[in-house]
Amino acid sequence: MTSKEYIQKLRTAKYPLRGNKPKAMKAQMKIFESLDDHLMPDVYGNGEVIENFEKLLSEEFKKPGAIFFPSGTMAQQIALRVLCDRRGLKRVAYHPLCHLEIHEQGGIKELHHIETVLLGDADRVFTLEDLKEMDDVSVVLFELPQREIGGQLPSWDELVSMVNFCRERGIYTHLDGARIYECLPYYEKTVEEVGQLFDSVYVSFYKTFGGVTGAMLIGDEAMMIEAKIWKRRHGGDLYQLFPYIVTASEAYLRNKDKMQGYYEGAKAYAGKLSKVSGIKIIPEVPVSNMFHIHFDETPEVVMERLAYVIDEKNIALFGGIATNTDSLAKTEVYIGDAYGEVEELLVDQAIGLYEKEKLG
Amino acid sequence: MTSKEYIQKLRTAKYPLRGNKPKAMKAQMKIFESLDDHLMPDVYGNGEVIENFEKLLSEEFKKPGAIFFPSGTMAQQIALRVLCDRRGLKRVAYHPLCHLEIHEQGGIKELHHIETVLLGDADRVFTLEDLKEMDDVSVVLFELPQREIGGQLPSWDELVSMVNFCRERGIYTHLDGARIYECLPYYEKTVEEVGQLFDSVYVSFYKTFGGVTGAMLIGDEAMMIEAKIWKRRHGGDLYQLFPYIVTASEAYLRNKDKMQGYYEGAKAYAGKLSKVSGIKIIPEVPVSNMFHIHFDETPEVVMERLAYVIDEKNIALFGGIATNTDSLAKTEVYIGDAYGEVEELLVDQAIGLYEKEKLG
Repeated sequence: MTSKEYIQKLRTAKYPLRGNKPKAMKAQMKIFESLDDHLMPDVYGNGEVIENFEKLLSEEFKKPGAIFFPSGTMAQQIALRVLCDRRGLKRVAYHPLCHLEIHEQGGIKELHHIETVLLGDADRVFTLEDLKEMDDVSVVLFELPQREIGGQLPSWDELVSMVNFCRERGIYTHLDGARIYECLPYYEKTVEEVGQLFDSVYVSFYKTFGGVTGAMLIGDEAMMIEAKIWKRRHGGDLYQLFPYIVTASEAYLRNKDKMQGYYEGAKAYAGKLSKVSGIKIIPEVPVSNMFHIHFDETPEVVMERLAYVIDEKNIALFGGIATNTDSLAKTEVYIGDAYGEVEELLVDQAIGLYEKEKLG
Repeated sequence: MTSKEYIQKLRTAKYPLRGNKPKAMKAQMKIFESLDDHLMPDVYGNGEVIENFEKLLSEEFKKPGAIFFPSGTMAQQIALRVLCDRRGLKRVAYHPLCHLEIHEQGGIKELHHIETVLLGDADRVFTLEDLKEMDDVSVVLFELPQREIGGQLPSWDELVSMVNFCRERGIYTHLDGARIYECLPYYEKTVEEVGQLFDSVYVSFYKTFGGVTGAMLIGDEAMMIEAKIWKRRHGGDLYQLFPYIVTASEAYLRNKDKMQGYYEGAKAYAGKLSKVSGIKIIPEVPVSNMFHIHFDETPEVVMERLAYVIDEKNIALFGGIATNTDSLAKTEVYIGDAYGEVEELLVDQAIGLYEKEKLG
């Protein structure tokens, strides 16, 4: 079965377990129907609709400022650029599978001419030991959880010691917090407590929150002033951002307190899947609402079997199936509202059917 | 009267003559209510909703490709970068009041390290003579109409001779066509005929068209491939662009054939205003749907009088009032649907009242 056929099949499943159910354009914009008739839009980053949302996040993180961006790619490059200029050294350090390193066509290098230092090994989170071996940099970018390795996290104590190490050396710290709310149940911390460790934080609104698009950069006043200039330079100071802001703030407020449930769901689902043959779960016990699965078969075979489960049980156990470095199948699981909407018995039956077909 | 008070007053006017009436967020998103329930969004630049609109514009301009961008700032920097890389020289030439020079915080220089050459004088369009004196560049950017000087245009013959001059020297040409449709009545050309002069064209959807936000870059296949990579680098390859695309394509289709009427409206309105004392109109006779007005008084005095006209006649003759280099008032007029919605007698009365107050 090809990826394209599998994606088509996915769309037919009544119960997709991954994340939030894909929503049609009309449904995503439905919130505007109930908006007050007189509420006027933002204009080039000004206006109540954008300023109120920025204020909400800056208060939530107890940091002086916040700026809404059309994308995290833009927000993070700019945060790193501002901090590099502040320290006078165009060099940052991050995990080898950092979003900036593998998903942004090298924008940080091509546009900002910032040199990047890769910390530790690709298949684990970096540690204090890795920082001790690092060349001097202006910023260390932390990503919590580390998405590309199944959402792993350093322990809280290790995290604090790494941040302190940077601070003592005058190295700034930036948090890729695209999924920061998803870490709070494991750390048993508030978002303020996590955010206070870092000089700046980026938060995404279209992942677990299920917003349409958009991100927030949160930091000090001086960064905000420079970030607005860079936002204009990048072409991100859009005439009107309200279609993203109204939907993002609604999704944020609706979902931000659901993370404990999503985390429990991830642990429960991983527990069930861990008994299936030919499946390896990373991390073994999830520390957020996400984990990765590596299969002992090719994507074609796995997709074929998952399609059969959809046909028989109307459940899509996973989303898209990718290929890992050994040419075998892998997938990313993250828990949003969809998982909790399906009866446990049905999930068990679907997993059982997958297992039965696997064993042939 | 302060700018802020005047802006407040503007909002109360039943008949704002400038452009299109400002619309609340709910009204701008109303089109989604009538959308088919099953239409799915774009994902990172892919999907029917974005591809169909890109195809429409590429066909309209009879050029191989088109890419939707969240902003013209991003689209144009990228077009120039691609063409500079193609010729192997990071230098472009444009008008001294080009958008890239005065409204983008120097993004083209700061992000792309492209040197810029200013052509001719700020208060007129550049000519073939200016090009003949120019240092070698990779690209000449034309802006039709030249917005910052009231939407002036070179004659068609001068334009063709300038483009031919560039072509003979292997210099690429890019069109800032944010308002290209607005030039067609004066030139008596189709958008295809104008577009074919240039290697690439950018079109905006939120100016005369009245869309929410967004732009299109139109050019050859090789540019499109590279532009998509740069779009990702800039942070403009957004997860979902459909809120802009659906509204932009609706506004585009609804308004693109209205330009003759807007042009006639601009000439008529400029004609009426030309008789008012203390007003200078640039250009004297509009060549698109726009013109600028320079007053012989300070912004405070002009705003006070305009506010009085709003109070008495419910008509806002102009939009925002800015300050020109002599510390006197200036404003930009452009004609959209709003002008035609007001009876001519009312417009004449409002202008008459303004004149009467001016003469005291």
